Amino acid sequence: MSNALPLGPGAEFDAIRSMLERWGPRASGVGDDAAVLGLPRGESLVASVDTAVENRHFVRGWLTTRELARRAVVAALSDLAAMAATPAGVLISLIVPDAWRDELLGLADGVGDAVRDAGTYIIGGNISAGDELSITTTVLGHVYVPLARSGAHVGDRLYVTGRLGGPADALFRLRDGRDAGPHRDRFARPVARIAEARWLAERGASAAIDISDGLAADARHVAAASGVRLVLDSPDIPCVSDVPAELALASGEEYELLVASPVALDAAEFEARFGIPLTPIGIVEHGSDVVVRGARVAAPSGHDHFSR
Amino acid sequence: MSNALPLGPGAEFDAIRSMLERWGPRASGVGDDAAVLGLPRGESLVASVDTAVENRHFVRGWLTTRELARRAVVAALSDLAAMAATPAGVLISLIVPDAWRDELLGLADGVGDAVRDAGTYIIGGNISAGDELSITTTVLGHVYVPLARSGAHVGDRLYVTGRLGGPADALFRLRDGRDAGPHRDRFARPVARIAEARWLAERGASAAIDISDGLAADARHVAAASGVRLVLDSPDIPCVSDVPAELALASGEEYELLVASPVALDAAEFEARFGIPLTPIGIVEHGSDVVVRGARVAAPSGHDHFSR
Repeated sequence: MSNALPLGPGAEFDAIRSMLERWGPRASGVGDDAAVLGLPRGESLVASVDTAVENRHFVRGWLTTRELARRAVVAALSDLAAMAATPAGVLISLIVPDAWRDELLGLADGVGDAVRDAGTYIIGGNISAGDELSITTTVLGHVYVPLARSGAHVGDRLYVTGRLGGPADALFRLRDGRDAGPHRDRFARPVARIAEARWLAERGASAAIDISDGLAADARHVAAASGVRLVLDSPDIPCVSDVPAELALASGEEYELLVASPVALDAAEFEARFGIPLTPIGIVEHGSDVVVRGARVAAPSGHDHFSR
Repeated sequence: MSNALPLGPGAEFDAIRSMLERWGPRASGVGDDAAVLGLPRGESLVASVDTAVENRHFVRGWLTTRELARRAVVAALSDLAAMAATPAGVLISLIVPDAWRDELLGLADGVGDAVRDAGTYIIGGNISAGDELSITTTVLGHVYVPLARSGAHVGDRLYVTGRLGGPADALFRLRDGRDAGPHRDRFARPVARIAEARWLAERGASAAIDISDGLAADARHVAAASGVRLVLDSPDIPCVSDVPAELALASGEEYELLVASPVALDAAEFEARFGIPLTPIGIVEHGSDVVVRGARVAAPSGHDHFSR
C-alpha cells in the first residue's frame, strides 16, 4: 500500500505525522483532501459512523488508552459486521483535549489494533483540539447482498454469537469502584464479528444487528424494522460465567450479533470455525416488539447514551 | 429515495427521528446498522472526514445555528470538490450538549442546506451527548480520475476560484466584538466548488486543494505533496473589496480552490458558467515551498486549529 503524502508544517500535521508513523503500512493514502479507493465490481458500498465521547461512553482510567481507542473503533466496525460487509477502510476524527495530548500514540495504537484485527486500513482522518476526548470512526465496507435489520420474517429462527453479559458485569464493577473482574477482557477487548457475519450470511441468515445497546433493546430494532415480533427464550441465552440472563439481556457494547435465519444454522461448524458459540435463542412471530419468555424480570430497555 | 426504517424507542432515537423528519427525502436509507449505496461502475470511491468543534472552529452567536451547521458540512464537502469528485452521500455525527438541545432542528436545517446545495443525501449519522457541540461530517463521493495535491508539475499555471479575504475580514470584525461587516455572506454561507472542480478537471487541471487554511498555507501542502515550488503573484490575488492581498493570503475557511494546470484555462468561460472569477495567480517552479512575489509582508502561515 502507498503510504502518506508529505504534509505541510504545523502542530496539527505534527500530530498526524506521529500517528501515521505509528500506523506504518496500516495507514494508506492519507494526506490528500480525501482518500481514494476502489471497490470490488458489482458490490455495494456500506458506510457507518460511530462516536465515543469521554464520560459518556467511557471513563478515563477504566481501561488503558490503547484499549479504549480500540473499543471505539471496534464499535464502528461492528456495524459493518452487522451488514455482513467486508471492511474497505476507516476514517478517524479525534477531538483531543490538552489533558490527553500525551496519549496520542496510545490512541493511535488502539486504532491500529482494531484496524489490523479487521484486516483493514486507516484511509483518512482529522484531529482537533477540544474540551473532551472523542473518537469518531467512519467505517467503509463492501458487500454483495447486505444483511439488513429489516430482513426478519415470521418463522425465522434467532441466533446469537458468543456469550453475553461480560461487558455489563465489568461495567457494574467499575462503576462500583472495584476492578473490572473476571470478564474484563470481554469489556476491554471486544471483537467485531466480521468473518462470522459473512459465514452466517453465506449460509442463509436474512437479518442481523450487532448488540451495542443490549440484546433486548437491539432485538426491538429488528422487530421494528422487520414489522415482526421477536420471541427470545431467556433460559437459552448464552451467558458468561456467574452472570444471569437478565443482566446479559441488558448488556450493551457486546458487539456480538443477533441474526434471524429461515434455515437452521450449523452451530457446531460455527463454533469449530470461530471458537465461539452460535446459540438458538428464539423465533420470529407475527406481531410487534420483543417478548422474553422465562425471564424473572421484564425485558430491560438497554442503554441510551442520549437520555437526559 | 427510500426513507428511514422504523427505529426503536429512546431519547437518542427521538432526536434522530426529529432530524429525519426535517430532512425528509434528503435523508436516505438511515436506520440500519450502516448505509448501503451503489457507485458508478469504474469510478473510485472518495472519502473524507472533517470536524467543527465549538469555540475552536466556531463561536456560538457569531452565526445562526443553521449557518454554522451548514458551514461545517460545506467544509467537508469542499474536500470532495478538491478531488473533483461527485458527492454520493454524507454521514453526520453530532455531539450535542444540553445547552444546544433546543437547537437540534436548526442544526438539522443547516446540514440539510449544505447537502441540498451539493445535490446529495444524508445516508447515516450518530448523535451523542457531550460537553461541547461538535459536528463531524464524513463525505463520500466518486470520481473517475481524482485531482490530487500531488499533481502539480514544473511549468504549470496556478489559478484560484472566487475572491478571497471575506472570511478573514468577517472573523476579524467578529473577534473584535463588531458585526461581521460587508463580507458576512462569504463567511456565513460558503459554497463547496463541486461543479467548478469537475469543470476544471475536465479542461486539464492536474492538481487541486481547497483553501481551508488560507491560500499561502494550502499552497504549501501542494508544494510538499508535488515536490515543487509554488510562486504566487501577490498583486494578482483576487480579493473582496477593501481587503488587502496580505489578509487574503491568510484567509482560511474560504472553500475556494487552488488548482494547477499544464494548459491555460478559459477564465471567461468559467466566470460565465459559474458567476465567480477564475484568476491566474502564479506558476509552478523547481524547488520547494511557496514564494509570494510582490507581497508587503512574509507569507503568512495560515490557521492551525491544533496549535497549543
